Amino acid sequence: MDSPIKVTVWNEFVHERTMEDVKKLYPAGIHAVLADYLNKAGMEAVTATLDQPEHGLTDEVLDRTEVLIWWGHMHHHEVDDEIVEKVRRKVLAGMGLIVLHSGHNSKIFKRLLGSDCRLKWRESGDAERLWVVKPGHPIAAGVGDYIDLEHEEMYGEIFDIPDPDELIFVSWFSGGEVFRSGCTFTRGKGKILYFRPGHETYPTYYNEKIIRVIQNGVKWARPIEISPIVFGHVEAGGVGQTHPK
Amino acid sequence: MDSPIKVTVWNEFVHERTMEDVKKLYPAGIHAVLADYLNKAGMEAVTATLDQPEHGLTDEVLDRTEVLIWWGHMHHHEVDDEIVEKVRRKVLAGMGLIVLHSGHNSKIFKRLLGSDCRLKWRESGDAERLWVVKPGHPIAAGVGDYIDLEHEEMYGEIFDIPDPDELIFVSWFSGGEVFRSGCTFTRGKGKILYFRPGHETYPTYYNEKIIRVIQNGVKWARPIEISPIVFGHVEAGGVGQTHPK
Amino acid sequence: MDSPIKVTVWNEFVHERTMEDVKKLYPAGIHAVLADYLNKAGMEAVTATLDQPEHGLTDEVLDRTEVLIWWGHMHHHEVDDEIVEKVRRKVLAGMGLIVLHSGHNSKIFKRLLGSDCRLKWRESGDAERLWVVKPGHPIAAGVGDYIDLEHEEMYGEIFDIPDPDELIFVSWFSGGEVFRSGCTFTRGKGKILYFRPGHETYPTYYNEKIIRVIQNGVKWARPIEISPIVFGHVEAGGVGQTHPK
Amino acid sequence: MDSPIKVTVWNEFVHERTMEDVKKLYPAGIHAVLADYLNKAGMEAVTATLDQPEHGLTDEVLDRTEVLIWWGHMHHHEVDDEIVEKVRRKVLAGMGLIVLHSGHNSKIFKRLLGSDCRLKWRESGDAERLWVVKPGHPIAAGVGDYIDLEHEEMYGEIFDIPDPDELIFVSWFSGGEVFRSGCTFTRGKGKILYFRPGHETYPTYYNEKIIRVIQNGVKWARPIEISPIVFGHVEAGGVGQTHPK
Repeated sequence: MDSPIKVTVWNEFVHERTMEDVKKLYPAGIHAVLADYLNKAGMEAVTATLDQPEHGLTDEVLDRTEVLIWWGHMHHHEVDDEIVEKVRRKVLAGMGLIVLHSGHNSKIFKRLLGSDCRLKWRESGDAERLWVVKPGHPIAAGVGDYIDLEHEEMYGEIFDIPDPDELIFVSWFSGGEVFRSGCTFTRGKGKILYFRPGHETYPTYYNEKIIRVIQNGVKWARPIEISPIVFGHVEAGGVGQTHPK
Repeated sequence: MDSPIKVTVWNEFVHERTMEDVKKLYPAGIHAVLADYLNKAGMEAVTATLDQPEHGLTDEVLDRTEVLIWWGHMHHHEVDDEIVEKVRRKVLAGMGLIVLHSGHNSKIFKRLLGSDCRLKWRESGDAERLWVVKPGHPIAAGVGDYIDLEHEEMYGEIFDIPDPDELIFVSWFSGGEVFRSGCTFTRGKGKILYFRPGHETYPTYYNEKIIRVIQNGVKWARPIEISPIVFGHVEAGGVGQTHPK
Repeated sequence: MDSPIKVTVWNEFVHERTMEDVKKLYPAGIHAVLADYLNKAGMEAVTATLDQPEHGLTDEVLDRTEVLIWWGHMHHHEVDDEIVEKVRRKVLAGMGLIVLHSGHNSKIFKRLLGSDCRLKWRESGDAERLWVVKPGHPIAAGVGDYIDLEHEEMYGEIFDIPDPDELIFVSWFSGGEVFRSGCTFTRGKGKILYFRPGHETYPTYYNEKIIRVIQNGVKWARPIEISPIVFGHVEAGGVGQTHPK
Repeated sequence: MDSPIKVTVWNEFVHERTMEDVKKLYPAGIHAVLADYLNKAGMEAVTATLDQPEHGLTDEVLDRTEVLIWWGHMHHHEVDDEIVEKVRRKVLAGMGLIVLHSGHNSKIFKRLLGSDCRLKWRESGDAERLWVVKPGHPIAAGVGDYIDLEHEEMYGEIFDIPDPDELIFVSWFSGGEVFRSGCTFTRGKGKILYFRPGHETYPTYYNEKIIRVIQNGVKWARPIEISPIVFGHVEAGGVGQTHPK
């Protein structure tokens, strides 16, 4: 009944070309793997990368995008401020945004949240277990009580974000840390999901439950409609009177 | 027992020098009136204005400030981006921030909140009644069920802010609008209060209950301590092991 | 693709049989009008009323119900505590619940929220304008900036509810009050919507936008699945060790 | 300046008289240890126990109580429903409530929250680390990044509570679980803190940081004033008119 959701998967796409272990895991890039899974689920996913003109986020691409997925790591500073502002305005108008893993440090995420989104981290192959703390939420549908990842980069609290609207996953790491791994936010009419897992040196994005959460997130973040809200000067509302009695 | 709270009241301070009706109401400036009320309540309030070097917000001033109050209207764009960023970092480290009335459109407020903070407005002397919706909150202490203002500028929904942590006041306007007039937010360790009333052409800042709310807000926003949070790379926590089994 | 949502509309159904003006507006009862609108929208709505055995909420009825709508006014105390507890357990397991108007004082709403849900009220035919304060939320889809109701019973703050998860509508009343008219809550896996309008002496439930919101609410509150969460004693998680070192 | 906070520490007080290992740790009862620490901090703490008339919670005691602390475990069902309702009404009127450890299953906590507050658990002496996730909050003052407890009973998610107003601590357990260990709620004018640690077989309530959090919590939960809110029928507000135009 509903038309397919139009998704754009953005990736920095550097590690997959410069680091052998990452290339083996994601030879066509993390974005290609994610887009493939989304297309198989009946969505219409395309990709965009840092090295393309306007980082692949032209007006044409953004105008068709209902949900934008963002993966970046070491090259956040190379993303053009004007593109970031264009994406931010699209989110305020209703476009959904899903920020993955090290995207916590992206310009767009920090700009929309207002804080610095810092955290503790350690690349030591910790075991991670993501516990569902908001059962019944559509983003957690079908994953049961938790998701196990054999090895992941550790992200630990304090995670310097504003209090999320909803907290859906909390991670346990074998080294002794916890992390708010699934957090939703709203900015303007746009829904935002931060979802932690996905270090480039692990096969996290082939994990069935991780993919399920990302698919759930796309469905959840889809806008009802993308349009600006009307603001500014208004006359009296018609129901009242400005100068009472 | 507690030492006096150190407050800095920042004001654009233009209207009071350029518009006769405003000058009559606030001859020494809105900041002077507010600082005076705070000092009388046992706080240590100083002032800072747009036209001072660094807008009066030097490192020395910011270092002593526990709570910063912000009033601005038509000259937001003249506030230097570097000062804005310095204030933002102080808020993340714990400094309280109280944004009044048209400060909703200030760089610092929009930068910390991430959205554009737009709204509907009308200068027509509407009657305003601010209803308490969170009784028992320290910011609403002593004001009873509501605050009446005979005439105010109207601000109407949709107010394009992220969902506040706490909603304390909702305004009714005679012309037919409502507005979330008392909203709290957290960014980093810093507490933020937005409080709507205070148009420059009305004697709002001489209203006893309005002053009471601002004083309450200052006490609420005072940091326990101002210090940065430690982030970054960490070794395993000591309680766990990174490579289980 | 999706199967039709199974809704049960519960109504006290007393006023429509005892008061002439109400009977004229809703000759077959408020529940019949609401169920009719939902069925026309492709849902499968049935009704249940106070005077039926088990108030019409037998195990069989509850087991088929994905979303329960509740309207009551003067006979809340006649609802059996055991039925209330059965409904509460269904909500915790995932059944959606939409509480309308004077249902704020129903046993089931107060039991799930924990506070007394009191408010100010006045039957004086105030004009009401419901302002959207969370644009982009699916419950507000298609209603624009606000909903106008020519006459309604006034409900005013303080509304003694816990802070809602989401605030979607705020009402303006011509007599000078405001009210949080569209509020969502979560209990267990169940989604709850309180939606204010619907006094029995006004044709509110024939208003196109009011019906739209109720239909939106049913879609939003539909559970992904209705099933209890597993709690209780557990062995160590498999990823960790209970006695470290 | 401020008068001492009046606290009542309620304890089931059964384990300390029936189990040798608990008796050794808390010979005069957990309530005595907690009251002692609060009194040393300049508060005025008294105690009340299950076996006293009205469980020690007479009108006289409740009338003097600004903050009530609750510890119970196996005898929740013996607490009289009328006393529970009396306590609930006091919380709605403004009395603070701090629920510790197995008090999650007390009648008063479940009644105020509306859900069943169930969880996973294991008595296996797990190591626990409570991470601060809301730095700058007064309840977390002075504890640094985390609190370590060498051995504790494990409580694991899903914790079946409504979304807390504020999430302050998240626990990591060596066996593989996480838990929202410091949660605040509001009901009426009353502030509620749930704080997880404190199994009767461990010396948790002699831990300096745990005591610090409980003292912080008492200060945070203290009401500004304890008084009922006015509800019910009201005349038009004086600023508006019920029949516009």
